[in-house]
Amino acid sequence: MPQGKPDTVPDDGLSTRQRRNRGVLAVHTGEMKGKSTAAFGMALRAWNQGWSIGVFQFVKSAKWRVGEEAAFRALGELHERTGQGGPVEWHKMGEGWSWARKAGTEQDHAARARDGWAEISRRLAEQRHDFYVLDEFSYPLRWGWIDVDEVVAALRQRPGRQHVVITGRDAPAALVEVADLVVEMTKVKHPMDAGQKGQRGIEW
Amino acid sequence: MPQGKPDTVPDDGLSTRQRRNRGVLAVHTGEMKGKSTAAFGMALRAWNQGWSIGVFQFVKSAKWRVGEEAAFRALGELHERTGQGGPVEWHKMGEGWSWARKAGTEQDHAARARDGWAEISRRLAEQRHDFYVLDEFSYPLRWGWIDVDEVVAALRQRPGRQHVVITGRDAPAALVEVADLVVEMTKVKHPMDAGQKGQRGIEW
Repeated sequence: MPQGKPDTVPDDGLSTRQRRNRGVLAVHTGEMKGKSTAAFGMALRAWNQGWSIGVFQFVKSAKWRVGEEAAFRALGELHERTGQGGPVEWHKMGEGWSWARKAGTEQDHAARARDGWAEISRRLAEQRHDFYVLDEFSYPLRWGWIDVDEVVAALRQRPGRQHVVITGRDAPAALVEVADLVVEMTKVKHPMDAGQKGQRGIEW
Repeated sequence: MPQGKPDTVPDDGLSTRQRRNRGVLAVHTGEMKGKSTAAFGMALRAWNQGWSIGVFQFVKSAKWRVGEEAAFRALGELHERTGQGGPVEWHKMGEGWSWARKAGTEQDHAARARDGWAEISRRLAEQRHDFYVLDEFSYPLRWGWIDVDEVVAALRQRPGRQHVVITGRDAPAALVEVADLVVEMTKVKHPMDAGQKGQRGIEW
Protein backbone atom coordinates (compact mmCIF):
# COMPACT_ATOMS: atom_id res chain seq x y z
CA MET A 1 0.00 0.00 0.00
CA PRO A 2 1.47 3.40 -0.97
CA GLN A 3 2.60 5.44 2.01
CA GLY A 4 2.16 8.78 0.25
CA LYS A 5 5.90 9.44 0.22
CA PRO A 6 7.26 10.22 -3.24
CA ASP A 7 10.74 8.85 -3.93
CA THR A 8 11.79 11.93 -5.85
CA VAL A 9 10.59 15.49 -6.26
CA PRO A 10 10.40 16.46 -9.93
CA ASP A 11 11.79 19.68 -11.32
CA ASP A 12 8.56 20.71 -13.06
CA GLY A 13 7.97 24.08 -11.43
CA LEU A 14 4.78 22.84 -9.72
CA SER A 15 4.12 22.97 -6.00
CA THR A 16 3.29 19.72 -4.21
CA ARG A 17 -0.29 20.95 -3.98
CA GLN A 18 -0.47 21.61 -7.72
CA ARG A 19 0.98 18.19 -8.48
CA ARG A 20 -1.38 16.59 -6.03
CA ASN A 21 -4.39 18.17 -7.66
CA ARG A 22 -3.63 17.62 -11.31
CA GLY A 23 -5.61 15.05 -13.26
CA VAL A 24 -4.16 11.57 -13.53
CA LEU A 25 -3.76 9.80 -16.86
CA ALA A 26 -3.74 6.03 -16.29
CA VAL A 27 -3.14 3.28 -18.84
CA HIS A 28 -4.15 -0.33 -18.14
CA THR A 29 -2.49 -2.60 -20.63
CA GLY A 30 -1.10 -6.16 -20.91
CA GLU A 31 -2.40 -9.45 -22.27
CA MET A 32 -4.58 -10.38 -19.31
CA LYS A 33 -8.09 -9.48 -18.30
CA GLY A 34 -8.51 -7.03 -15.44
CA LYS A 35 -7.62 -3.93 -17.46
CA SER A 36 -11.17 -2.67 -17.87
CA THR A 37 -12.34 -4.29 -14.64
CA ALA A 38 -9.80 -2.26 -12.67
CA ALA A 39 -10.79 0.91 -14.57
CA PHE A 40 -14.41 0.43 -13.50
CA GLY A 41 -13.23 -0.26 -9.95
CA MET A 42 -11.49 3.12 -10.02
CA ALA A 43 -14.69 4.69 -11.34
CA LEU A 44 -16.45 3.50 -8.15
CA ARG A 45 -14.15 5.75 -6.14
CA ALA A 46 -14.75 8.62 -8.56
CA TRP A 47 -18.52 8.13 -8.24
CA ASN A 48 -18.24 8.26 -4.46
CA GLN A 49 -16.46 11.64 -4.75
CA GLY A 50 -19.48 13.00 -6.59
CA TRP A 51 -17.47 13.31 -9.80
CA SER A 52 -19.02 13.33 -13.25
CA ILE A 53 -18.11 10.06 -14.99
CA GLY A 54 -17.99 9.55 -18.75
CA VAL A 55 -17.48 6.03 -20.11
CA PHE A 56 -16.67 5.54 -23.79
CA GLN A 57 -16.48 1.97 -25.04
CA PHE A 58 -14.41 1.49 -28.19
CA VAL A 59 -15.63 -2.04 -28.86
CA LYS A 60 -18.13 -3.39 -31.32
CA SER A 61 -19.89 -5.71 -28.91
CA ALA A 62 -20.74 -4.63 -25.40
CA LYS A 63 -21.35 -8.18 -24.21
CA TRP A 64 -18.36 -8.19 -21.89
CA ARG A 65 -19.34 -5.12 -19.90
CA VAL A 66 -23.09 -5.55 -19.28
CA GLY A 67 -22.60 -6.04 -15.54
CA GLU A 68 -20.51 -2.94 -15.09
CA GLU A 69 -22.83 -0.91 -17.29
CA ALA A 70 -25.94 -1.98 -15.36
CA ALA A 71 -24.29 -1.22 -12.02
CA PHE A 72 -23.04 2.20 -13.14
CA ARG A 73 -26.36 3.11 -14.70
CA ALA A 74 -27.96 2.21 -11.34
CA LEU A 75 -25.41 4.39 -9.52
CA GLY A 76 -26.05 7.24 -11.97
CA GLU A 77 -29.82 6.99 -11.42
CA LEU A 78 -29.23 6.89 -7.67
CA HIS A 79 -27.31 10.15 -8.03
CA GLU A 80 -30.15 11.75 -9.99
CA ARG A 81 -32.73 10.68 -7.43
CA THR A 82 -30.86 11.27 -4.17
CA GLY A 83 -27.79 13.35 -4.97
CA GLN A 84 -25.51 10.59 -3.65
CA GLY A 85 -22.33 10.04 -5.66
CA GLY A 86 -21.85 11.55 -9.11
CA PRO A 87 -23.59 11.51 -12.51
CA VAL A 88 -22.72 8.77 -15.00
CA GLU A 89 -22.80 8.79 -18.82
CA TRP A 90 -22.13 5.56 -20.71
CA HIS A 91 -21.50 5.62 -24.46
CA LYS A 92 -20.93 2.67 -26.77
CA MET A 93 -19.36 2.82 -30.20
CA GLY A 94 -21.02 -0.48 -31.12
CA GLU A 95 -24.43 1.17 -30.82
CA GLY A 96 -23.48 4.29 -32.74
CA TRP A 97 -22.54 6.35 -29.64
CA SER A 98 -25.32 7.52 -27.31
CA TRP A 99 -24.56 11.21 -27.85
CA ALA A 100 -24.43 10.95 -31.65
CA ARG A 101 -28.14 10.10 -32.06
CA LYS A 102 -27.52 8.35 -35.34
CA ALA A 103 -27.39 4.77 -34.21
CA GLY A 104 -27.80 2.25 -36.96
CA THR A 105 -26.42 4.44 -39.71
CA GLU A 106 -23.97 2.69 -41.97
CA GLN A 107 -20.59 4.01 -41.08
CA ASP A 108 -17.33 2.12 -40.96
CA HIS A 109 -15.68 1.35 -37.64
CA ALA A 110 -12.73 3.66 -38.22
CA ALA A 111 -15.05 6.62 -38.85
CA ARG A 112 -17.08 5.78 -35.74
CA ALA A 113 -13.94 5.55 -33.65
CA ARG A 114 -12.78 8.94 -34.96
CA ASP A 115 -16.20 10.42 -34.17
CA GLY A 116 -15.86 9.09 -30.65
CA TRP A 117 -12.44 10.58 -30.16
CA ALA A 118 -13.57 13.95 -31.60
CA GLU A 119 -16.38 14.03 -29.02
CA ILE A 120 -14.04 13.10 -26.16
CA SER A 121 -11.58 15.74 -27.30
CA ARG A 122 -14.36 18.39 -27.23
CA ARG A 123 -15.44 17.24 -23.76
CA LEU A 124 -11.87 17.41 -22.45
CA ALA A 125 -11.54 20.97 -23.78
CA GLU A 126 -14.77 22.06 -22.07
CA GLN A 127 -14.06 20.02 -18.89
CA ARG A 128 -17.31 18.12 -19.16
CA HIS A 129 -16.35 15.21 -16.88
CA ASP A 130 -14.05 14.64 -13.93
CA PHE A 131 -13.32 10.99 -14.72
CA TYR A 132 -13.17 9.41 -18.18
CA VAL A 133 -12.92 5.72 -19.01
CA LEU A 134 -11.77 5.19 -22.63
CA ASP A 135 -12.35 1.46 -22.76
CA GLU A 136 -10.37 -0.56 -25.34
CA PHE A 137 -9.09 2.72 -26.74
CA SER A 138 -5.65 1.25 -27.48
CA TYR A 139 -7.06 -0.68 -30.45
CA PRO A 140 -8.19 2.22 -32.70
CA LEU A 141 -4.83 3.82 -31.92
CA ARG A 142 -2.92 0.65 -32.81
CA TRP A 143 -4.91 0.19 -35.99
CA GLY A 144 -4.13 3.72 -37.14
CA TRP A 145 -7.77 4.80 -37.05
CA ILE A 146 -7.00 7.65 -34.69
CA ASP A 147 -3.76 9.63 -34.67
CA VAL A 148 -1.73 8.89 -31.54
CA ASP A 149 0.09 12.24 -31.57
CA GLU A 150 -3.22 14.12 -31.69
CA VAL A 151 -4.49 12.10 -28.72
CA VAL A 152 -1.30 12.68 -26.74
CA ALA A 153 -1.45 16.42 -27.43
CA ALA A 154 -5.11 16.66 -26.37
CA LEU A 155 -4.43 14.69 -23.19
CA ARG A 156 -1.37 16.81 -22.35
CA GLN A 157 -3.28 20.05 -22.89
CA ARG A 158 -6.46 19.06 -21.10
CA PRO A 159 -7.39 21.85 -18.68
CA GLY A 160 -8.29 21.58 -15.00
CA ARG A 161 -8.30 18.33 -13.12
CA GLN A 162 -9.71 15.69 -15.42
CA HIS A 163 -8.73 12.08 -14.76
CA VAL A 164 -8.53 9.71 -17.73
CA VAL A 165 -8.15 5.93 -17.72
CA ILE A 166 -7.35 4.22 -21.02
CA THR A 167 -7.52 0.44 -21.37
CA GLY A 168 -6.49 -2.13 -23.97
CA ARG A 169 -3.60 -4.34 -25.05
CA ASP A 170 -0.46 -2.98 -26.65
CA ALA A 171 -0.82 0.64 -25.62
CA PRO A 172 1.30 2.78 -27.99
CA ALA A 173 4.66 3.91 -26.59
CA ALA A 174 3.77 7.61 -26.94
CA LEU A 175 0.71 7.05 -24.75
CA VAL A 176 2.70 5.15 -22.12
CA GLU A 177 5.23 7.99 -22.21
CA VAL A 178 2.66 10.68 -21.40
CA ALA A 179 0.76 8.59 -18.80
CA ASP A 180 1.21 9.10 -15.06
CA LEU A 181 0.23 5.58 -14.11
CA VAL A 182 0.72 2.47 -16.25
CA VAL A 183 -0.29 -0.98 -15.07
CA GLU A 184 0.32 -4.14 -17.02
CA MET A 185 -1.99 -7.09 -16.34
CA THR A 186 0.02 -10.28 -16.77
CA LYS A 187 -1.41 -13.74 -17.10
CA VAL A 188 -0.25 -16.27 -14.59
CA LYS A 189 -3.07 -18.75 -15.02
CA HIS A 190 -6.42 -18.67 -16.77
CA PRO A 191 -9.38 -21.11 -16.51
CA MET A 192 -9.57 -21.41 -20.30
CA ASP A 193 -6.11 -23.01 -20.21
CA ALA A 194 -7.74 -25.79 -18.20
CA GLY A 195 -10.64 -26.17 -20.61
CA GLN A 196 -13.11 -23.98 -18.75
CA LYS A 197 -15.34 -21.71 -20.77
CA GLY A 198 -16.33 -18.19 -19.88
CA GLN A 199 -19.34 -17.86 -17.60
CA ARG A 200 -22.01 -15.32 -16.83
CA GLY A 201 -21.32 -13.06 -13.87
CA ILE A 202 -17.61 -13.77 -14.09
CA GLU A 203 -16.70 -12.86 -17.66
CA TRP A 204 -19.53 -10.44 -18.40
CA MET B 1 -10.85 -10.71 -25.52
CA PRO B 2 -11.44 -14.41 -24.81
CA GLN B 3 -13.33 -16.16 -27.58
CA GLY B 4 -14.73 -18.89 -25.33
CA LYS B 5 -12.62 -21.60 -26.96
CA PRO B 6 -10.57 -23.61 -24.47
CA ASP B 7 -7.14 -24.68 -25.73
CA THR B 8 -7.32 -28.07 -24.05
CA VAL B 9 -10.01 -30.24 -22.54
CA PRO B 10 -9.00 -31.52 -19.11
CA ASP B 11 -9.30 -35.11 -18.02
CA ASP B 12 -11.20 -34.33 -14.82
CA GLY B 13 -14.34 -36.40 -15.39
CA LEU B 14 -16.53 -33.28 -15.59
CA SER B 15 -18.79 -32.40 -18.48
CA THR B 16 -18.30 -29.03 -20.20
CA ARG B 17 -21.50 -27.89 -18.53
CA GLN B 18 -20.25 -28.90 -15.10
CA ARG B 19 -16.95 -27.15 -15.67
CA ARG B 20 -18.73 -24.10 -16.95
CA ASN B 21 -20.88 -23.88 -13.88
CA ARG B 22 -18.36 -24.50 -11.14
CA GLY B 23 -17.26 -21.62 -8.97
CA VAL B 24 -14.14 -19.73 -9.96
CA LEU B 25 -11.28 -19.12 -7.55
CA ALA B 26 -9.36 -16.05 -8.68
CA VAL B 27 -6.15 -14.64 -7.19
CA HIS B 28 -5.03 -11.06 -7.92
CA THR B 29 -1.44 -10.64 -6.90
CA GLY B 30 1.69 -8.67 -7.89
CA GLU B 31 3.38 -5.52 -6.64
CA MET B 32 1.11 -3.00 -8.34
CA LYS B 33 -2.22 -1.50 -7.42
CA GLY B 34 -5.27 -2.74 -9.30
CA LYS B 35 -5.54 -6.06 -7.45
CA SER B 36 -8.44 -5.04 -5.23
CA THR B 37 -9.77 -2.55 -7.73
CA ALA B 38 -10.21 -5.32 -10.30
CA ALA B 39 -11.82 -7.57 -7.68
CA PHE B 40 -14.43 -4.89 -6.99
CA GLY B 41 -14.91 -4.44 -10.72
CA MET B 42 -15.72 -8.17 -10.93
CA ALA B 43 -18.13 -7.75 -8.03
CA LEU B 44 -20.10 -5.25 -10.16
CA ARG B 45 -20.83 -8.06 -12.61
CA ALA B 46 -21.77 -10.38 -9.76
CA TRP B 47 -24.14 -7.74 -8.34
CA ASN B 48 -25.79 -7.38 -11.74
CA GLN B 49 -26.46 -11.15 -11.76
CA GLY B 50 -28.39 -10.78 -8.52
CA TRP B 51 -25.74 -12.73 -6.64
CA SER B 52 -25.15 -12.42 -2.92
CA ILE B 53 -21.82 -10.65 -2.37
CA GLY B 54 -19.68 -10.94 0.75
CA VAL B 55 -16.65 -8.66 1.11
CA PHE B 56 -14.09 -9.36 3.85
CA GLN B 57 -11.29 -6.83 4.25
CA PHE B 58 -8.18 -8.18 5.93
CA VAL B 59 -6.61 -4.79 6.50
CA LYS B 60 -6.30 -2.65 9.58
CA SER B 61 -7.27 0.60 7.93
CA ALA B 62 -10.11 0.82 5.46
CA LYS B 63 -9.00 4.21 4.17
CA TRP B 64 -8.07 2.90 0.74
CA ARG B 65 -11.46 1.36 -0.05
CA VAL B 66 -13.98 3.97 1.12
CA GLY B 67 -15.13 4.71 -2.43
CA GLU B 68 -15.76 1.08 -3.30
CA GLU B 69 -17.46 0.46 0.04
CA ALA B 70 -19.80 3.45 -0.35
CA ALA B 71 -20.72 2.43 -3.91
CA PHE B 72 -21.36 -1.21 -2.96
CA ARG B 73 -23.37 -0.24 0.11
CA ALA B 74 -25.47 1.95 -2.20
CA LEU B 75 -25.91 -0.97 -4.61
CA GLY B 76 -26.86 -3.26 -1.70
CA GLU B 77 -29.46 -0.78 -0.46
CA LEU B 78 -30.77 -0.42 -4.00
CA HIS B 79 -31.24 -4.18 -4.06
CA GLU B 80 -33.12 -4.14 -0.76
CA ARG B 81 -35.41 -1.35 -1.94
CA THR B 82 -36.05 -2.37 -5.54
CA GLY B 83 -34.85 -5.94 -5.96
CA GLN B 84 -32.37 -4.87 -8.63
CA GLY B 85 -29.00 -6.62 -8.47
CA GLY B 86 -27.93 -8.67 -5.46
CA PRO B 87 -27.46 -8.19 -1.71
CA VAL B 88 -24.12 -6.93 -0.41
CA GLU B 89 -22.39 -7.52 2.94
CA TRP B 90 -19.17 -5.66 3.74
CA HIS B 91 -17.03 -6.70 6.71
CA LYS B 92 -13.84 -5.08 7.98
CA MET B 93 -11.29 -6.70 10.24
CA GLY B 94 -10.02 -3.26 11.29
CA GLU B 95 -13.37 -2.52 12.87
CA GLY B 96 -13.67 -5.89 14.61
CA TRP B 97 -15.72 -7.54 11.81
CA SER B 98 -19.35 -6.46 11.31
CA TRP B 99 -20.74 -9.95 12.02
CA ALA B 100 -18.73 -10.45 15.22
CA ARG B 101 -20.49 -7.68 17.18
CA LYS B 102 -17.51 -7.22 19.45
CA ALA B 103 -15.87 -4.25 17.81
CA GLY B 104 -13.37 -2.48 19.97
CA THR B 105 -12.44 -5.47 22.07
CA GLU B 106 -8.74 -5.88 22.57
CA GLN B 107 -7.67 -8.75 20.42
CA ASP B 108 -4.47 -9.11 18.48
CA HIS B 109 -4.49 -8.91 14.72
CA ALA B 110 -3.61 -12.56 14.20
CA ALA B 111 -6.58 -13.67 16.31
CA ARG B 112 -8.89 -11.30 14.44
CA ALA B 113 -7.66 -12.58 11.11
CA ARG B 114 -8.26 -16.18 12.26
CA ASP B 115 -11.77 -15.23 13.44
CA GLY B 116 -12.42 -13.77 10.02
CA TRP B 117 -11.26 -16.87 8.20
CA ALA B 118 -13.30 -19.13 10.54
CA GLU B 119 -16.42 -17.15 9.63
CA ILE B 120 -15.66 -17.28 5.90
CA SER B 121 -15.04 -21.02 6.17
CA ARG B 122 -18.45 -21.48 7.83
CA ARG B 123 -20.14 -19.36 5.16
CA LEU B 124 -18.49 -21.37 2.38
CA ALA B 125 -19.71 -24.61 3.96
CA GLU B 126 -23.29 -23.32 4.17
CA GLN B 127 -23.12 -21.57 0.76
CA ARG B 128 -24.03 -18.20 2.20
CA HIS B 129 -22.78 -16.08 -0.71
CA ASP B 130 -22.30 -16.47 -4.44
CA PHE B 131 -19.33 -14.14 -4.70
CA TYR B 132 -16.66 -13.53 -2.05
CA VAL B 133 -13.95 -10.89 -2.04
CA LEU B 134 -11.20 -11.74 0.45
CA ASP B 135 -9.35 -8.46 0.24
CA GLU B 136 -5.64 -8.44 1.22
CA PHE B 137 -6.05 -12.02 2.38
CA SER B 138 -2.57 -12.99 1.16
CA TYR B 139 -0.98 -11.13 4.09
CA PRO B 140 -2.36 -13.13 7.05
CA LEU B 141 -1.44 -16.25 5.04
CA ARG B 142 2.10 -14.99 4.41
CA TRP B 143 2.54 -14.00 8.04
CA GLY B 144 1.53 -17.45 9.25
CA TRP B 145 -1.57 -16.17 11.06
CA ILE B 146 -3.82 -18.49 9.09
CA ASP B 147 -2.84 -21.95 7.88
CA VAL B 148 -2.53 -22.03 4.10
CA ASP B 149 -3.27 -25.75 3.80
CA GLU B 150 -6.50 -25.33 5.76
CA VAL B 151 -7.55 -22.50 3.46
CA VAL B 152 -6.70 -24.48 0.34
CA ALA B 153 -8.66 -27.49 1.62
CA ALA B 154 -11.73 -25.37 2.46
CA LEU B 155 -11.64 -23.67 -0.94
CA ARG B 156 -11.22 -27.00 -2.75
CA GLN B 157 -14.11 -28.55 -0.87
CA ARG B 158 -16.50 -25.61 -1.06
CA PRO B 159 -19.87 -26.89 -2.29
CA GLY B 160 -22.04 -25.52 -5.08
CA ARG B 161 -21.03 -22.63 -7.26
CA GLN B 162 -19.34 -20.10 -5.04
CA HIS B 163 -16.89 -17.69 -6.65
CA VAL B 164 -13.99 -16.42 -4.57
CA VAL B 165 -11.53 -13.62 -5.38
CA ILE B 166 -8.45 -13.28 -3.17
CA THR B 167 -6.19 -10.22 -3.39
CA GLY B 168 -2.79 -9.23 -2.04
CA ARG B 169 0.92 -9.34 -2.84
CA ASP B 170 2.96 -12.52 -2.68
CA ALA B 171 0.10 -15.02 -2.82
CA PRO B 172 1.38 -18.33 -1.41
CA ALA B 173 2.28 -20.96 -4.02
CA ALA B 174 -0.31 -23.44 -2.70
CA LEU B 175 -3.03 -20.85 -3.25
CA VAL B 176 -1.84 -20.06 -6.78
CA GLU B 177 -1.78 -23.82 -7.43
CA VAL B 178 -5.44 -24.32 -6.47
CA ALA B 179 -6.68 -21.12 -8.19
CA ASP B 180 -8.43 -21.16 -11.56
CA LEU B 181 -7.47 -17.62 -12.50
CA VAL B 182 -4.33 -15.81 -11.38
CA VAL B 183 -3.53 -12.27 -12.49
CA GLU B 184 -0.37 -10.45 -11.62
CA MET B 185 -0.49 -6.64 -11.59
CA THR B 186 2.92 -5.35 -12.67
CA LYS B 187 4.12 -1.81 -12.29
CA VAL B 188 5.19 -0.06 -15.45
CA LYS B 189 4.98 3.49 -14.16
CA HIS B 190 3.53 5.10 -11.05
CA PRO B 191 2.85 8.80 -10.31
CA MET B 192 4.69 8.54 -6.97
CA ASP B 193 7.86 7.79 -8.94
CA ALA B 194 7.49 11.28 -10.37
CA GLY B 195 6.91 12.90 -7.01
CA GLN B 196 3.12 12.94 -7.10
CA LYS B 197 1.29 12.09 -3.91
CA GLY B 198 -1.84 10.01 -3.62
CA GLN B 199 -5.09 11.86 -4.12
CA ARG B 200 -8.72 11.55 -3.11
CA GLY B 201 -10.97 9.83 -5.64
CA ILE B 202 -8.00 8.18 -7.31
CA GLU B 203 -6.23 6.33 -4.50
CA TRP B 204 -9.17 5.95 -2.12
